[in-house]
Amino acid sequence: MNNYVISGVKMLKPSGEVEAANIFISGDKISKITQGEVECSNVIDGKNKFATPGLVNAHTHASMTLLRSYSDDKALMDWLQKDIWPIEDKMQRQDIYWGAKLAAVEMIRGGTTAFADMYGPCMDEVAKVVDESGLRGSLSQGLISFANGEKKLAANVELYKNFHGAADGRITIMFGPHAIYTCPPDYLKKVAAEAQKLGAEIHMHMNETQTEINDCLKAYGKRPFEVVNETGLFEQGTLAAHCVWLSDSEIEIIKAKKIRVAHNPGSNMKLASGICPATKLLSKGVTVALGTDGASSNNNLDMLEEVRLAALLAKVDTLNPLAVPAAQALQMATQFGAAALGLQNVGRLEEGCKADIVLWDMRGVDWQPNYNPASLLVYSANSTAADTVIVDGKILMQGRELKTLDEEKIIAEFTACANRLSNN
Amino acid sequence: MNNYVISGVKMLKPSGEVEAANIFISGDKISKITQGEVECSNVIDGKNKFATPGLVNAHTHASMTLLRSYSDDKALMDWLQKDIWPIEDKMQRQDIYWGAKLAAVEMIRGGTTAFADMYGPCMDEVAKVVDESGLRGSLSQGLISFANGEKKLAANVELYKNFHGAADGRITIMFGPHAIYTCPPDYLKKVAAEAQKLGAEIHMHMNETQTEINDCLKAYGKRPFEVVNETGLFEQGTLAAHCVWLSDSEIEIIKAKKIRVAHNPGSNMKLASGICPATKLLSKGVTVALGTDGASSNNNLDMLEEVRLAALLAKVDTLNPLAVPAAQALQMATQFGAAALGLQNVGRLEEGCKADIVLWDMRGVDWQPNYNPASLLVYSANSTAADTVIVDGKILMQGRELKTLDEEKIIAEFTACANRLSNN
Repeated sequence: MNNYVISGVKMLKPSGEVEAANIFISGDKISKITQGEVECSNVIDGKNKFATPGLVNAHTHASMTLLRSYSDDKALMDWLQKDIWPIEDKMQRQDIYWGAKLAAVEMIRGGTTAFADMYGPCMDEVAKVVDESGLRGSLSQGLISFANGEKKLAANVELYKNFHGAADGRITIMFGPHAIYTCPPDYLKKVAAEAQKLGAEIHMHMNETQTEINDCLKAYGKRPFEVVNETGLFEQGTLAAHCVWLSDSEIEIIKAKKIRVAHNPGSNMKLASGICPATKLLSKGVTVALGTDGASSNNNLDMLEEVRLAALLAKVDTLNPLAVPAAQALQMATQFGAAALGLQNVGRLEEGCKADIVLWDMRGVDWQPNYNPASLLVYSANSTAADTVIVDGKILMQGRELKTLDEEKIIAEFTACANRLSNN
Repeated sequence: MNNYVISGVKMLKPSGEVEAANIFISGDKISKITQGEVECSNVIDGKNKFATPGLVNAHTHASMTLLRSYSDDKALMDWLQKDIWPIEDKMQRQDIYWGAKLAAVEMIRGGTTAFADMYGPCMDEVAKVVDESGLRGSLSQGLISFANGEKKLAANVELYKNFHGAADGRITIMFGPHAIYTCPPDYLKKVAAEAQKLGAEIHMHMNETQTEINDCLKAYGKRPFEVVNETGLFEQGTLAAHCVWLSDSEIEIIKAKKIRVAHNPGSNMKLASGICPATKLLSKGVTVALGTDGASSNNNLDMLEEVRLAALLAKVDTLNPLAVPAAQALQMATQFGAAALGLQNVGRLEEGCKADIVLWDMRGVDWQPNYNPASLLVYSANSTAADTVIVDGKILMQGRELKTLDEEKIIAEFTACANRLSNN
């Protein structure tokens, strides 16, 4: 069993304050937090390190790393129809596995400890990657009614039965209806019924583009949150990705149904979707987490970039320099991220919580002078400062060295997949 | 004399295309670019590297690294009046030096080869840093009429006479009238007259905030570009930083006077100033370069972040995914950056141009798969991928190892300055 202490580290408290602390880890939990000198035989020296909860990527499609830089700077429908969908159609079981495995390397290297993934087919391969990497993953089968909708729904049920709670609870399973424009209400009702039988939660794209809203209004005379709400899909707990274009009545639905929002600033900027009204949602008490989206629309899985973008974009969007200060941006990526994934006792450095921790190396020039570590992490540092990454008390990276994954082999296998997909 | 070749490297051409090439360097210049095999005794292996022109930071205040994370998430006037100005008042000669020297480390580590600096007093210390570091710098004394305006103007004249063209031409000097709200028209006329006598160019903050525009309209009945234009200040070549709030008639002045714009997306977002209409300016043929601004309002000197922000912000600002594609964002940070600083034959990888080159290491997971290096650099990589940095043919960093600066000593001296300034 893990039994060690991170000594003399600057620690981000759930309040947003930073203080010197010793963090004791027993098994998968933070057992004790103390100040002052510490005596223990098994010590990680926290000197010049900043300890934060692990970052939570609340919306991604991990295996899409295979499509990174394959198609950029295109109009949305050209990008999807001419480039992305045709290559996705060729993806096989090994692509899902190696794409997700490279994503796992990238996430650990950037200080991410948990992620919400929606993709498919073969999501059992992503579950395998979660198991092997030591990360925490909330996985869902992407469901599109017109493309084998029934079969995919059955696959999501299987996924739940086989993997929910697996890998010592690090794997949880949600249902993944893709979006209102790919899943009409009758299909969503079926998804809701299957999810309800299992007590499963939902992960769905909502209100990403203006086109989506306009098409929904045309088809149903109502806005997406209104249409979906009537299907019963929001009754079991929902993670809604994007939420860029929201009416006030939709925000009321989000509040009433306690829907958690995954804000994806980088993807929404790059695809010119718009800006999620994160400041407004936060002021109304909505849980707004952060996500990268897939690597073909971001183009990386670097959560620290999303933290910075969320903090910067909120300010320029509201013309208020006080919007989303550093501590709140970090809260979105940690505490709110864990809540968005439906995880208990994750995302806070507190006694009794899961030991999901990142130690950031503060020795680089971009951390000087060291007046305010939280501000430095959000506004100055980059993700290569992630030195040590811990999940469930287990060390996945230390001194930038990966402990669970063979990076060289993964890049080689991943590259072979990419070559096969792009050369066909 | 430098005499070597970078062999078999992926190279960004001035057209924005990428091709395999051998880059021959003789003295301070690119003497030849070839394809195919190469024979030469002095070779830098370009395998797995991406060669781009060095990044140009077209607007910064280097010594403000000392104020990084000292005050963040405050309203603009609280930030300036209560925190920034009082600590700046305490700055002495050694602070200007060590602040700029840490900035030089940070810039080289991030792939920046040239910068436009406006600060003071003691800008001769920054000149010394440019000389010692091997970087290229266009320096100006920040001029504020009500704070020793005449004395500072005399200092800018001295700076020009002592350093313009120094360090083998790597140092150039501009005049630095701070802004319309700190330099009334009569003072700007004096600045224009002194600059004209010497043939010097101008570096000035323009149209950064709505407040600045409103105050200018109230004081002079005209907008900032209109007021400044009438002083004669724009006659010798001008680098205008920020340019967030522009009327169409001001854009006409920018075009007519061939004013180069330094767009600072990170600073403008963080301080909630607004968004520079970069897409519109570029479409009208204006030279729009990129800058970080000072490290207390950014909070780093990472130009690759500004490249990404410029590309992302343009798209979400115009709701057009085709705005500022990757190659154009890189052009803004290289070719247009050099033009903004008034540099000839800099910012392009072309025979006869200055050998200011960055080799980016493409082996990291965030560069996989390697479909499109330019897109990967702009949308996925981070600045720690800068492996080798060359200015005037001289290698300033290779394999992440600094060749001209002692980082450990610089951080120690810099930290001593920061401690003295913040503890007084």
